[in-house]
Amino acid sequence: MRIALGVEYNGADFCGWQSQPNGLGVQDALELAIKMIALQSVRVHAAGRTDTGVHALMQVVHFETTAERPITAWVRGVNAYLPAGVRVLWSHEVDEGFHARFSATQRSYQYVLINQAQPSAISHHTLGWYHLPLVIEPMQTAIAYLRGEHDFSAFRASECQAKSPVKQLSVAEVRQVGQYFVFNFSANAFLQHQVRNMVGALIYVGAGKQQPESIQKLLQQADRTQAPPTFSPNGLYLSGVRYASAWGLPDTHKQLSFI
Amino acid sequence: MRIALGVEYNGADFCGWQSQPNGLGVQDALELAIKMIALQSVRVHAAGRTDTGVHALMQVVHFETTAERPITAWVRGVNAYLPAGVRVLWSHEVDEGFHARFSATQRSYQYVLINQAQPSAISHHTLGWYHLPLVIEPMQTAIAYLRGEHDFSAFRASECQAKSPVKQLSVAEVRQVGQYFVFNFSANAFLQHQVRNMVGALIYVGAGKQQPESIQKLLQQADRTQAPPTFSPNGLYLSGVRYASAWGLPDTHKQLSFI
Repeated sequence: MRIALGVEYNGADFCGWQSQPNGLGVQDALELAIKMIALQSVRVHAAGRTDTGVHALMQVVHFETTAERPITAWVRGVNAYLPAGVRVLWSHEVDEGFHARFSATQRSYQYVLINQAQPSAISHHTLGWYHLPLVIEPMQTAIAYLRGEHDFSAFRASECQAKSPVKQLSVAEVRQVGQYFVFNFSANAFLQHQVRNMVGALIYVGAGKQQPESIQKLLQQADRTQAPPTFSPNGLYLSGVRYASAWGLPDTHKQLSFI
Repeated sequence: MRIALGVEYNGADFCGWQSQPNGLGVQDALELAIKMIALQSVRVHAAGRTDTGVHALMQVVHFETTAERPITAWVRGVNAYLPAGVRVLWSHEVDEGFHARFSATQRSYQYVLINQAQPSAISHHTLGWYHLPLVIEPMQTAIAYLRGEHDFSAFRASECQAKSPVKQLSVAEVRQVGQYFVFNFSANAFLQHQVRNMVGALIYVGAGKQQPESIQKLLQQADRTQAPPTFSPNGLYLSGVRYASAWGLPDTHKQLSFI
Protein backbone atom coordinates (compact mmCIF):
# COMPACT_ATOMS: atom_id res chain seq x y z
CA MET A 1 0.00 0.00 0.00
CA ARG A 2 0.98 3.64 -0.42
CA ILE A 3 1.06 6.03 2.56
CA ALA A 4 1.25 9.85 2.38
CA LEU A 5 2.54 11.87 5.33
CA GLY A 6 2.46 15.57 6.24
CA VAL A 7 5.84 16.43 7.79
CA GLU A 8 7.19 19.45 9.71
CA TYR A 9 10.91 20.02 10.26
CA ASN A 10 13.47 22.51 11.48
CA GLY A 11 16.06 22.81 8.70
CA ALA A 12 18.78 23.89 11.14
CA ASP A 13 18.88 20.34 12.52
CA PHE A 14 19.60 18.69 9.14
CA CYS A 15 21.69 18.96 5.96
CA GLY A 16 18.66 19.56 3.74
CA TRP A 17 15.83 17.24 2.78
CA GLN A 18 17.77 14.85 0.60
CA SER A 19 19.48 11.69 1.88
CA GLN A 20 23.16 12.35 2.70
CA PRO A 21 26.17 10.05 3.00
CA ASN A 22 26.48 11.30 6.61
CA GLY A 23 22.85 10.38 7.28
CA LEU A 24 21.95 13.96 8.19
CA GLY A 25 19.22 14.56 5.59
CA VAL A 26 15.64 14.80 6.83
CA GLN A 27 14.94 11.92 4.45
CA ASP A 28 17.46 9.73 6.31
CA ALA A 29 15.84 10.41 9.69
CA LEU A 30 12.37 9.74 8.31
CA GLU A 31 13.29 6.53 6.44
CA LEU A 32 15.01 5.19 9.56
CA ALA A 33 12.02 5.95 11.81
CA ILE A 34 9.53 4.45 9.33
CA LYS A 35 11.68 1.32 9.11
CA MET A 36 11.35 0.89 12.89
CA ILE A 37 7.55 0.70 12.47
CA ALA A 38 7.35 -1.08 9.09
CA LEU A 39 10.15 -3.51 9.97
CA GLN A 40 11.26 -3.17 6.35
CA SER A 41 13.23 -0.55 4.42
CA VAL A 42 11.25 2.16 2.67
CA ARG A 43 12.13 4.88 0.19
CA VAL A 44 10.44 8.21 0.92
CA HIS A 45 9.56 10.64 -1.91
CA ALA A 46 8.97 14.32 -1.08
CA ALA A 47 7.01 17.06 -2.84
CA GLY A 48 9.98 19.43 -2.62
CA ARG A 49 13.66 18.90 -1.85
CA THR A 50 14.53 21.75 0.54
CA ASP A 51 18.12 23.00 0.90
CA THR A 52 20.21 22.98 4.07
CA GLY A 53 18.78 25.37 6.65
CA VAL A 54 15.36 25.60 4.96
CA HIS A 55 12.40 24.57 7.15
CA ALA A 56 9.11 22.88 6.36
CA LEU A 57 5.83 23.80 8.02
CA MET A 58 4.23 21.29 5.66
CA GLN A 59 6.23 18.92 3.50
CA VAL A 60 4.24 16.13 1.85
CA VAL A 61 5.89 12.74 1.26
CA HIS A 62 4.83 9.24 0.31
CA PHE A 63 6.24 5.74 0.59
CA GLU A 64 5.28 2.23 -0.44
CA THR A 65 5.13 -0.62 2.04
CA THR A 66 3.63 -4.08 2.47
CA ALA A 67 3.51 -3.60 6.26
CA GLU A 68 -0.07 -3.30 7.50
CA ARG A 69 -0.30 -0.96 10.46
CA PRO A 70 -3.09 1.12 11.98
CA ILE A 71 -2.94 4.46 10.11
CA THR A 72 -2.06 6.34 13.35
CA ALA A 73 1.09 4.18 13.77
CA TRP A 74 2.60 6.15 10.88
CA VAL A 75 2.21 9.30 13.02
CA ARG A 76 2.65 8.37 16.68
CA GLY A 77 4.83 5.33 16.11
CA VAL A 78 7.15 7.05 13.62
CA ASN A 79 7.38 10.19 15.78
CA ALA A 80 8.62 8.07 18.68
CA TYR A 81 11.71 7.26 16.58
CA LEU A 82 12.28 10.72 15.08
CA PRO A 83 14.62 13.38 16.49
CA ALA A 84 12.81 16.42 17.98
CA GLY A 85 13.50 18.55 14.88
CA VAL A 86 11.14 16.55 12.64
CA ARG A 87 7.51 15.49 13.25
CA VAL A 88 4.90 13.63 11.23
CA LEU A 89 1.68 15.71 11.37
CA TRP A 90 -0.73 13.29 9.67
CA SER A 91 -0.82 10.04 7.68
CA HIS A 92 -3.21 8.99 4.97
CA GLU A 93 -3.44 5.88 2.77
CA VAL A 94 -3.46 6.93 -0.88
CA ASP A 95 -4.19 5.34 -4.23
CA GLU A 96 -1.19 3.74 -6.00
CA GLY A 97 -1.36 6.51 -8.60
CA PHE A 98 -0.45 9.19 -6.06
CA HIS A 99 3.10 10.59 -6.08
CA ALA A 100 4.09 13.30 -3.55
CA ARG A 101 6.23 15.04 -6.15
CA PHE A 102 4.59 14.35 -9.50
CA SER A 103 0.97 14.69 -8.33
CA ALA A 104 1.66 18.11 -6.75
CA THR A 105 0.15 20.99 -8.73
CA GLN A 106 1.50 23.85 -6.62
CA ARG A 107 4.13 24.55 -3.94
CA SER A 108 3.96 27.41 -1.42
CA TYR A 109 6.82 29.03 0.48
CA GLN A 110 6.80 31.56 3.27
CA TYR A 111 9.80 33.76 4.05
CA VAL A 112 9.99 35.67 7.34
CA LEU A 113 12.70 38.18 8.20
CA ILE A 114 13.29 40.46 11.14
CA ASN A 115 14.28 44.05 10.29
CA GLN A 116 16.37 45.51 13.10
CA ALA A 117 19.93 46.67 13.74
CA GLN A 118 21.00 43.41 15.41
CA PRO A 119 20.00 39.87 14.37
CA SER A 120 17.68 37.90 16.65
CA ALA A 121 19.51 35.61 19.09
CA ILE A 122 16.46 33.52 19.92
CA SER A 123 15.43 33.01 16.27
CA HIS A 124 18.83 32.98 14.58
CA HIS A 125 18.02 29.67 12.88
CA THR A 126 14.38 30.45 12.06
CA LEU A 127 14.28 34.05 10.77
CA GLY A 128 16.04 35.92 8.02
CA TRP A 129 17.53 39.25 9.09
CA TYR A 130 18.25 42.60 7.46
CA HIS A 131 19.96 45.43 9.31
CA LEU A 132 18.99 48.55 7.26
CA PRO A 133 15.43 49.94 7.58
CA LEU A 134 13.09 48.48 4.96
CA VAL A 135 10.08 50.31 3.48
CA ILE A 136 7.14 48.09 2.64
CA GLU A 137 5.43 50.09 -0.16
CA PRO A 138 8.20 49.85 -2.80
CA MET A 139 8.56 46.15 -1.99
CA GLN A 140 4.85 45.65 -2.64
CA THR A 141 5.13 47.52 -5.94
CA ALA A 142 8.15 45.44 -6.89
CA ILE A 143 6.71 42.04 -5.96
CA ALA A 144 3.74 42.58 -8.31
CA TYR A 145 6.16 42.33 -11.28
CA LEU A 146 6.95 38.75 -10.22
CA ARG A 147 3.37 37.52 -10.37
CA GLY A 148 2.32 35.50 -13.42
CA GLU A 149 4.28 33.46 -15.95
CA HIS A 150 7.89 34.59 -16.46
CA ASP A 151 11.34 33.37 -17.36
CA PHE A 152 12.90 33.41 -13.85
CA SER A 153 16.51 32.88 -15.03
CA ALA A 154 17.63 35.97 -13.09
CA PHE A 155 16.57 34.20 -9.89
CA ARG A 156 17.89 30.74 -10.73
CA ALA A 157 20.94 29.09 -9.11
CA SER A 158 23.66 28.15 -11.60
CA GLU A 159 23.44 24.48 -10.56
CA CYS A 160 19.64 24.36 -11.04
CA GLN A 161 18.58 21.28 -13.01
CA ALA A 162 15.03 22.33 -13.97
CA LYS A 163 14.22 21.78 -17.64
CA SER A 164 12.74 25.25 -18.09
CA PRO A 165 13.25 28.58 -16.30
CA VAL A 166 9.66 29.55 -17.12
CA LYS A 167 7.36 29.20 -14.10
CA GLN A 168 3.86 30.37 -13.19
CA LEU A 169 3.99 32.39 -9.93
CA SER A 170 0.35 32.58 -8.80
CA VAL A 171 1.01 34.17 -5.37
CA ALA A 172 3.70 36.77 -4.59
CA GLU A 173 2.87 38.95 -1.59
CA VAL A 174 4.71 40.75 1.17
CA ARG A 175 3.33 42.36 4.33
CA GLN A 176 4.86 44.04 7.35
CA VAL A 177 3.97 42.98 10.90
CA GLY A 178 5.85 45.30 13.24
CA GLN A 179 9.55 44.67 12.68
CA TYR A 180 8.84 41.48 10.66
CA PHE A 181 8.43 41.19 6.89
CA VAL A 182 6.43 38.16 5.77
CA PHE A 183 6.58 36.97 2.14
CA ASN A 184 4.26 34.37 0.58
CA PHE A 185 4.94 32.72 -2.78
CA SER A 186 3.05 29.96 -4.62
CA ALA A 187 3.95 28.48 -8.00
CA ASN A 188 3.48 25.30 -10.01
CA ALA A 189 7.19 24.72 -9.31
CA PHE A 190 10.21 26.76 -8.21
CA LEU A 191 13.75 26.94 -9.58
CA GLN A 192 16.63 26.22 -7.21
CA HIS A 193 17.17 29.17 -4.80
CA GLN A 194 14.38 31.05 -6.59
CA VAL A 195 12.60 32.22 -3.43
CA ARG A 196 15.82 33.26 -1.68
CA ASN A 197 16.95 35.11 -4.84
CA MET A 198 13.61 36.90 -5.21
CA VAL A 199 13.65 37.89 -1.52
CA GLY A 200 17.21 39.19 -1.93
CA ALA A 201 16.16 41.41 -4.85
CA LEU A 202 13.04 42.66 -3.03
CA ILE A 203 15.12 43.59 0.01
CA TYR A 204 17.37 45.75 -2.19
CA VAL A 205 14.20 47.56 -3.27
CA GLY A 206 12.94 47.92 0.32
CA ALA A 207 16.29 49.33 1.43
CA GLY A 208 16.28 51.89 -1.42
CA LYS A 209 19.29 50.38 -3.21
CA GLN A 210 17.13 49.60 -6.26
CA GLN A 211 13.88 50.92 -7.69
CA PRO A 212 10.78 48.65 -7.85
CA GLU A 213 11.11 48.60 -11.66
CA SER A 214 14.51 46.88 -11.28
CA ILE A 215 12.58 43.63 -10.75
CA GLN A 216 10.94 43.96 -14.17
CA LYS A 217 14.32 44.64 -15.73
CA LEU A 218 15.85 41.57 -14.05
CA LEU A 219 13.07 39.39 -15.46
CA GLN A 220 13.65 40.81 -18.93
CA GLN A 221 17.46 40.49 -18.80
CA ALA A 222 17.14 36.89 -17.51
CA ASP A 223 20.72 37.13 -16.23
CA ARG A 224 21.53 35.86 -12.72
CA THR A 225 24.77 37.86 -12.60
CA GLN A 226 22.80 41.14 -12.71
CA ALA A 227 20.65 40.29 -9.65
CA PRO A 228 21.34 40.90 -5.93
CA PRO A 229 22.80 38.01 -3.90
CA THR A 230 20.90 34.95 -2.63
CA PHE A 231 19.31 35.62 0.75
CA SER A 232 19.79 33.44 3.85
CA PRO A 233 17.92 30.09 4.07
CA ASN A 234 17.13 30.68 7.77
CA GLY A 235 13.80 32.45 7.23
CA LEU A 236 12.53 30.15 4.47
CA TYR A 237 9.66 27.70 5.06
CA LEU A 238 7.99 25.25 2.70
CA SER A 239 4.44 26.08 3.78
CA GLY A 240 2.27 23.87 1.61
CA VAL A 241 1.74 21.64 -1.40
CA ARG A 242 -1.45 21.50 -3.44
CA TYR A 243 -2.96 18.28 -4.82
CA ALA A 244 -6.22 17.55 -6.62
CA SER A 245 -8.97 17.13 -3.99
CA ALA A 246 -9.73 13.71 -5.48
CA TRP A 247 -6.70 12.32 -3.58
CA GLY A 248 -8.61 13.06 -0.35
CA LEU A 249 -5.60 14.27 1.63
CA PRO A 250 -5.83 16.17 4.96
CA ASP A 251 -4.86 19.86 5.02
CA THR A 252 -1.58 20.26 3.10
CA HIS A 253 -0.92 23.93 4.01
CA LYS A 254 0.27 25.64 7.19
CA GLN A 255 1.45 29.18 8.05
CA LEU A 256 3.68 30.52 10.80
CA SER A 257 1.84 32.22 13.68
CA PHE A 258 2.21 35.49 15.56
CA ILE A 259 1.16 35.91 19.17
CA MET B 1 33.14 52.96 34.65
CA ARG B 2 30.09 50.76 34.90
CA ILE B 3 28.24 49.58 31.78
CA ALA B 4 24.76 48.04 31.67
CA LEU B 5 23.70 45.86 28.73
CA GLY B 6 20.37 44.51 27.53
CA VAL B 7 20.95 40.94 26.32
CA GLU B 8 18.85 38.42 24.34
CA TYR B 9 19.73 34.72 24.18
CA ASN B 10 18.47 31.31 23.08
CA GLY B 11 18.79 29.05 26.10
CA ALA B 12 19.04 25.92 23.93
CA ASP B 13 22.54 27.02 22.88
CA PHE B 14 23.91 27.24 26.44
CA CYS B 15 24.03 25.45 29.80
CA GLY B 16 22.13 28.23 31.57
CA TRP B 17 23.18 31.79 32.38
CA GLN B 18 25.82 31.03 34.98
CA SER B 19 29.49 30.51 34.18
CA GLN B 20 30.30 26.79 33.73
CA PRO B 21 33.56 24.83 34.00
CA ASN B 22 32.93 23.78 30.35
CA GLY B 23 32.55 27.43 29.33
CA LEU B 24 29.01 26.87 28.04
CA GLY B 25 27.21 29.39 30.24
CA VAL B 26 25.83 32.52 28.55
CA GLN B 27 27.97 34.42 31.06
CA ASP B 28 31.12 32.73 29.71
CA ALA B 29 30.32 33.71 26.12
CA LEU B 30 29.54 37.28 27.13
CA GLU B 31 32.61 37.76 29.33
CA LEU B 32 34.85 36.40 26.56
CA ALA B 33 33.35 38.72 23.92
CA ILE B 34 33.55 41.77 26.20
CA LYS B 35 37.18 40.93 26.93
CA MET B 36 37.91 41.10 23.18
CA ILE B 37 36.68 44.72 23.18
CA ALA B 38 37.86 45.84 26.63
CA LEU B 39 41.23 44.06 26.30
CA GLN B 40 40.87 43.20 29.98
CA SER B 41 38.92 40.57 31.90
CA VAL B 42 35.50 41.55 33.20
CA ARG B 43 33.00 39.95 35.52
CA VAL B 44 29.40 40.24 34.33
CA HIS B 45 26.49 40.38 36.82
CA ALA B 46 22.96 39.52 35.64
CA ALA B 47 19.52 40.46 36.93
CA GLY B 48 18.41 36.81 36.86
CA ARG B 49 20.29 33.53 36.58
CA THR B 50 18.25 31.51 34.10
CA ASP B 51 18.43 27.69 34.06
CA THR B 52 19.56 25.49 31.17
CA GLY B 53 17.14 25.75 28.24
CA VAL B 54 15.51 28.98 29.49
CA HIS B 55 15.67 31.92 27.07
CA ALA B 56 15.97 35.65 27.60
CA LEU B 57 14.14 38.21 25.49
CA MET B 58 15.63 40.80 27.85
CA GLN B 59 18.27 39.99 30.41
CA VAL B 60 19.96 43.00 32.03
CA VAL B 61 23.60 42.75 33.08
CA HIS B 62 26.37 45.11 34.18
CA PHE B 63 30.14 45.06 34.35
CA GLU B 64 32.92 47.30 35.54
CA THR B 65 35.82 48.29 33.29
CA THR B 66 38.55 50.89 32.98
CA ALA B 67 38.49 50.53 29.17
CA GLU B 68 37.14 53.66 27.50
CA ARG B 69 35.19 52.77 24.36
CA PRO B 70 32.44 54.46 22.36
CA ILE B 71 29.20 53.24 23.96
CA THR B 72 28.15 51.51 20.71
CA ALA B 73 31.32 49.34 20.84
CA TRP B 74 29.68 47.45 23.73
CA VAL B 75 26.89 46.49 21.31
CA ARG B 76 28.33 46.12 17.81
CA GLY B 77 31.87 45.26 18.89
CA VAL B 78 30.81 42.69 21.47
CA ASN B 79 28.23 41.14 19.12
CA ALA B 80 30.98 40.54 16.56
CA TYR B 81 32.59 38.14 19.06
CA LEU B 82 29.41 36.46 20.32
CA PRO B 83 27.93 33.19 19.01
CA ALA B 84 24.65 33.65 17.08
CA GLY B 85 22.56 32.48 20.05
CA VAL B 86 23.31 35.58 22.14
CA ARG B 87 23.05 39.30 21.20
CA VAL B 88 23.62 42.56 23.03
CA LEU B 89 20.56 44.75 22.33
CA TRP B 90 21.74 48.01 23.94
CA SER B 91 24.48 49.44 26.16
CA HIS B 92 24.27 52.27 28.66
CA GLU B 93 26.80 53.81 31.04
CA VAL B 94 25.40 53.72 34.56
CA ASP B 95 26.22 55.24 37.92
CA GLU B 96 28.55 53.20 40.17
CA GLY B 97 25.62 52.54 42.51
CA PHE B 98 23.77 50.50 39.87
CA HIS B 99 23.76 46.72 40.19
CA ALA B 100 21.87 44.60 37.58
CA ARG B 101 20.71 42.17 40.27
CA PHE B 102 20.37 44.23 43.44
CA SER B 103 18.89 47.36 41.83
CA ALA B 104 16.17 45.35 40.07
CA THR B 105 12.74 45.87 41.62
CA GLN B 106 10.81 43.38 39.44
CA ARG B 107 11.41 40.47 37.05
CA SER B 108 9.01 39.38 34.31
CA TYR B 109 8.75 35.99 32.65
CA GLN B 110 6.73 34.85 29.68
CA TYR B 111 5.85 31.20 29.07
CA VAL B 112 4.54 30.04 25.69
CA LEU B 113 3.30 26.56 24.95
CA ILE B 114 1.72 24.92 21.94
CA ASN B 115 -1.34 22.75 22.59
CA GLN B 116 -1.62 20.06 19.94
CA ALA B 117 -1.34 16.29 19.65
CA GLN B 118 2.25 16.34 18.38
CA PRO B 119 5.05 18.66 19.58
CA SER B 120 6.34 21.35 17.21
CA ALA B 121 9.40 20.29 15.20
CA ILE B 122 10.35 23.82 14.18
CA SER B 123 10.02 25.27 17.71
CA HIS B 124 11.04 22.26 19.79
CA HIS B 125 13.62 24.36 21.65
CA THR B 126 11.52 27.49 21.97
CA LEU B 127 7.99 26.38 22.95
CA GLY B 128 6.56 24.30 25.73
CA TRP B 129 4.13 21.61 24.56
CA TYR B 130 1.08 19.85 25.98
CA HIS B 131 -0.72 17.07 24.13
CA LEU B 132 -4.18 16.99 25.78
CA PRO B 133 -6.71 19.74 24.93
CA LEU B 134 -6.52 22.68 27.36
CA VAL B 135 -9.46 24.92 28.29
CA ILE B 136 -8.54 28.54 28.98
CA GLU B 137 -11.34 29.62 31.38
CA PRO B 138 -10.45 27.34 34.34
CA MET B 139 -6.78 28.31 33.88
CA GLN B 140 -7.73 31.98 34.11
CA THR B 141 -9.75 31.31 37.27
CA ALA B 142 -6.86 29.34 38.73
CA ILE B 143 -4.11 31.85 37.91
CA ALA B 144 -5.95 34.59 39.85
CA TYR B 145 -5.21 32.69 43.08
CA LEU B 146 -1.50 33.17 42.44
CA ARG B 147 -1.64 36.98 42.25
CA GLY B 148 -0.52 38.92 45.31
CA GLU B 149 1.78 38.06 48.23
CA HIS B 150 1.97 34.35 49.05
CA ASP B 151 4.21 31.65 50.47
CA PHE B 152 5.16 29.91 47.18
CA SER B 153 6.77 26.86 48.83
CA ALA B 154 4.55 24.52 46.77
CA PHE B 155 6.20 25.90 43.62
CA ARG B 156 9.78 26.01 44.89
CA ALA B 157 12.59 23.67 43.78
CA SER B 158 14.13 21.67 46.63
CA GLU B 159 17.55 23.15 45.88
CA CYS B 160 16.26 26.77 45.91
CA GLN B 161 18.50 29.04 47.98
CA ALA B 162 16.16 32.02 48.42
CA LYS B 163 15.95 33.28 52.02
CA SER B 164 12.15 33.40 52.01
CA PRO B 165 9.45 31.56 50.02
CA VAL B 166 7.17 34.62 50.32
CA LYS B 167 7.06 36.64 47.09
CA GLN B 168 4.83 39.35 45.68
CA LEU B 169 3.40 38.23 42.32
CA SER B 170 2.05 41.42 40.74
CA VAL B 171 1.23 39.96 37.31
CA ALA B 172 -0.12 36.45 36.65
CA GLU B 173 -2.08 36.19 33.40
CA VAL B 174 -2.76 33.57 30.74
CA ARG B 175 -4.37 34.00 27.32
CA GLN B 176 -5.02 31.71 24.39
CA VAL B 177 -3.93 32.64 20.86
CA GLY B 178 -5.15 29.88 18.56
CA GLN B 179 -3.30 26.73 19.63
CA TYR B 180 -0.85 28.71 21.79
CA PHE B 181 -1.16 29.50 25.50
CA VAL B 182 0.79 32.55 26.62
CA PHE B 183 1.50 33.16 30.32
CA ASN B 184 2.90 36.38 31.80
CA PHE B 185 4.27 36.65 35.33
CA SER B 186 5.93 39.56 37.15
CA ALA B 187 7.24 39.54 40.73
CA ASN B 188 9.76 41.29 42.91
CA ALA B 189 11.71 38.02 42.70
CA PHE B 190 11.04 34.38 41.81
CA LEU B 191 11.98 31.16 43.56
CA GLN B 192 13.94 28.52 41.63
CA HIS B 193 11.68 26.76 39.07
CA GLN B 194 8.72 28.81 40.36
CA VAL B 195 7.38 29.77 36.93
CA ARG B 196 7.77 26.26 35.49
CA ASN B 197 6.10 24.79 38.60
CA MET B 198 3.20 27.27 38.44
CA VAL B 199 2.74 26.57 34.70
CA GLY B 200 2.74 22.82 35.42
CA ALA B 201 -0.03 23.22 38.00
CA LEU B 202 -2.08 25.51 35.73
CA ILE B 203 -1.86 22.99 32.89
CA TYR B 204 -3.30 20.31 35.16
CA VAL B 205 -6.24 22.65 35.70
CA GLY B 206 -6.59 23.39 31.98
CA ALA B 207 -6.58 19.68 31.18
CA GLY B 208 -9.29 19.00 33.77
CA LYS B 209 -7.03 16.90 36.02
CA GLN B 210 -7.45 19.44 38.85
CA GLN B 211 -10.01 22.09 39.78
CA PRO B 212 -9.03 25.80 39.72
CA GLU B 213 -9.30 25.83 43.54
CA SER B 214 -6.45 23.29 43.72
CA ILE B 215 -4.06 26.22 43.23
CA GLN B 216 -5.36 27.90 46.40
CA LYS B 217 -4.98 24.65 48.30
CA LEU B 218 -1.40 24.20 47.05
CA LEU B 219 -0.53 27.71 48.29
CA GLN B 220 -2.06 26.93 51.68
CA GLN B 221 -0.38 23.52 52.02
CA ALA B 222 3.00 25.01 51.02
CA ASP B 223 4.21 21.49 50.17
CA ARG B 224 6.08 20.92 46.90
CA THR B 225 5.40 17.17 47.00
CA GLN B 226 1.64 17.83 46.61
CA ALA B 227 2.03 19.87 43.38
CA PRO B 228 2.16 18.72 39.73
CA PRO B 229 5.59 18.23 38.14
CA THR B 230 7.91 21.00 36.90
CA PHE B 231 7.13 21.97 33.31
CA SER B 232 9.69 22.07 30.48
CA PRO B 233 12.16 25.01 30.32
CA ASN B 234 11.77 25.23 26.52
CA GLY B 235 8.88 27.72 26.51
CA LEU B 236 10.23 29.97 29.27
CA TYR B 237 11.53 33.48 28.54
CA LEU B 238 12.93 36.10 30.89
CA SER B 239 11.04 39.02 29.35
CA GLY B 240 12.04 42.02 31.41
CA VAL B 241 13.58 43.56 34.51
CA ARG B 242 12.32 46.73 36.17
CA TYR B 243 14.61 49.43 37.60
CA ALA B 244 13.91 52.86 39.07
CA SER B 245 13.62 55.33 36.18
CA ALA B 246 16.35 57.43 37.84
CA TRP B 247 18.95 54.99 36.43
CA GLY B 248 17.96 56.22 32.94
CA LEU B 249 18.15 52.82 31.24
CA PRO B 250 16.70 52.09 27.77
CA ASP B 251 13.64 49.82 27.53
CA THR B 252 14.21 46.79 29.78
CA HIS B 253 11.16 44.77 28.67
CA LYS B 254 10.39 42.78 25.54
CA GLN B 255 7.64 40.33 24.59
CA LEU B 256 7.64 37.46 22.13
CA SER B 257 5.69 38.41 19.00
CA PHE B 258 6.27 35.61 16.62
CA ILE B 259 6.63 31.84 16.74
